[in-house]
Amino acid sequence: MSEAQMPTPRTRVVREAHRGVYDRQTAYAILDEGFLCHVGFSVEGQPFVIPTLYGRQGDSLFLHGSAASRMLRQMKQSLPVCVTVTLVDGLVLARSIFNQSMNYRSVVVLGKATLVDDPGGKREALRLFSEHVIPGRWADVRPPNERELKQTSVLRLPIEEFSSKVRTGPPVDDEEDYSFPTWAGVVPLEMKSGDPIADERVPAGQAVPKYAQRYARKP
Amino acid sequence: MSEAQMPTPRTRVVREAHRGVYDRQTAYAILDEGFLCHVGFSVEGQPFVIPTLYGRQGDSLFLHGSAASRMLRQMKQSLPVCVTVTLVDGLVLARSIFNQSMNYRSVVVLGKATLVDDPGGKREALRLFSEHVIPGRWADVRPPNERELKQTSVLRLPIEEFSSKVRTGPPVDDEEDYSFPTWAGVVPLEMKSGDPIADERVPAGQAVPKYAQRYARKP
Repeated sequence: MSEAQMPTPRTRVVREAHRGVYDRQTAYAILDEGFLCHVGFSVEGQPFVIPTLYGRQGDSLFLHGSAASRMLRQMKQSLPVCVTVTLVDGLVLARSIFNQSMNYRSVVVLGKATLVDDPGGKREALRLFSEHVIPGRWADVRPPNERELKQTSVLRLPIEEFSSKVRTGPPVDDEEDYSFPTWAGVVPLEMKSGDPIADERVPAGQAVPKYAQRYARKP
Repeated sequence: MSEAQMPTPRTRVVREAHRGVYDRQTAYAILDEGFLCHVGFSVEGQPFVIPTLYGRQGDSLFLHGSAASRMLRQMKQSLPVCVTVTLVDGLVLARSIFNQSMNYRSVVVLGKATLVDDPGGKREALRLFSEHVIPGRWADVRPPNERELKQTSVLRLPIEEFSSKVRTGPPVDDEEDYSFPTWAGVVPLEMKSGDPIADERVPAGQAVPKYAQRYARKP
């Protein structure tokens, strides 16, 4: 795992360049904390951006590939995509509106996605999605059968060309604005879970599994 | 405001078609609850997906347009984009892995974005972004000056071609799986705010404004 990945001209952060981070460790920590990505691809010059689940295994991303995979099948080749994962950490209230900001961590991965076509690979990807979203669940579910694997579409994207962008900490105002008489600071934001809701056909008294209690994304 | 917008072939939901929703009311409720969008555009055949803030005014979306606007300026014309907003409402734990799902609400808007070039329009967009993210803040901040407006880039996207996709409620398992002995249900998820953190130069004793206390996105 290279710790000092160089950005390419396509992944170098241009705006707010000081927020660009290019090592795999930072990117993988963000990818592992999130579970929803937005995958972008083009059809006849029109970009599409579709939210979908993903998982990471080593230096590959696996995507639940419904929309994009249909297109890929038509093309019968690999598909240029952009996968972006964004974690929102807080609102940054500066004294000037111009310095208002957001604390966040995002990763952009560019590359060519290919279909995972063999049932074994698809099964492994389903396990990956499941364990990525809710670790421990896989052992408790009815596993996929052959028919279901046929209906599942999975894309693999090598994590080769990527960059992260990270903003943390308090607002940064222009020096002359610090005397402006308004409150300034950060409103922290985090994805939080509520109490699990059993469906109507769970037998009364059946315990909620540990992994569904106090579910959280932060490591 | 049309209540029965027809989808175009490009916005019709194909996968899980029963989750497609095409009225403006649904789309606008989602757009108004979220504040972060993912905007997709293409450069020389490579799609890019960039997270950014947005605001809505009537039937237009306004985007904080850093990355995309640089490109647009080169093209000197409008830019085909896709703007996607996704709200995550919960994890859906079904008995079969195949029916594992997520409760979410998303909107996809396709169209051509144009630069907002006049200072008045940019100022209004900054107000819109601010009030969209944290209503009430605009009145308390140092407003943008001429230099800052010059550095601000804003894109406008008419909301003409769009669709929403919504999943709510408990897992839906195949009938034969309901006897499978595992817990099934929903883990609700919501973006929650923590206690506001004043920066070091806020005078001791200065009250946290109301809009920053118990901040929440749900209406």
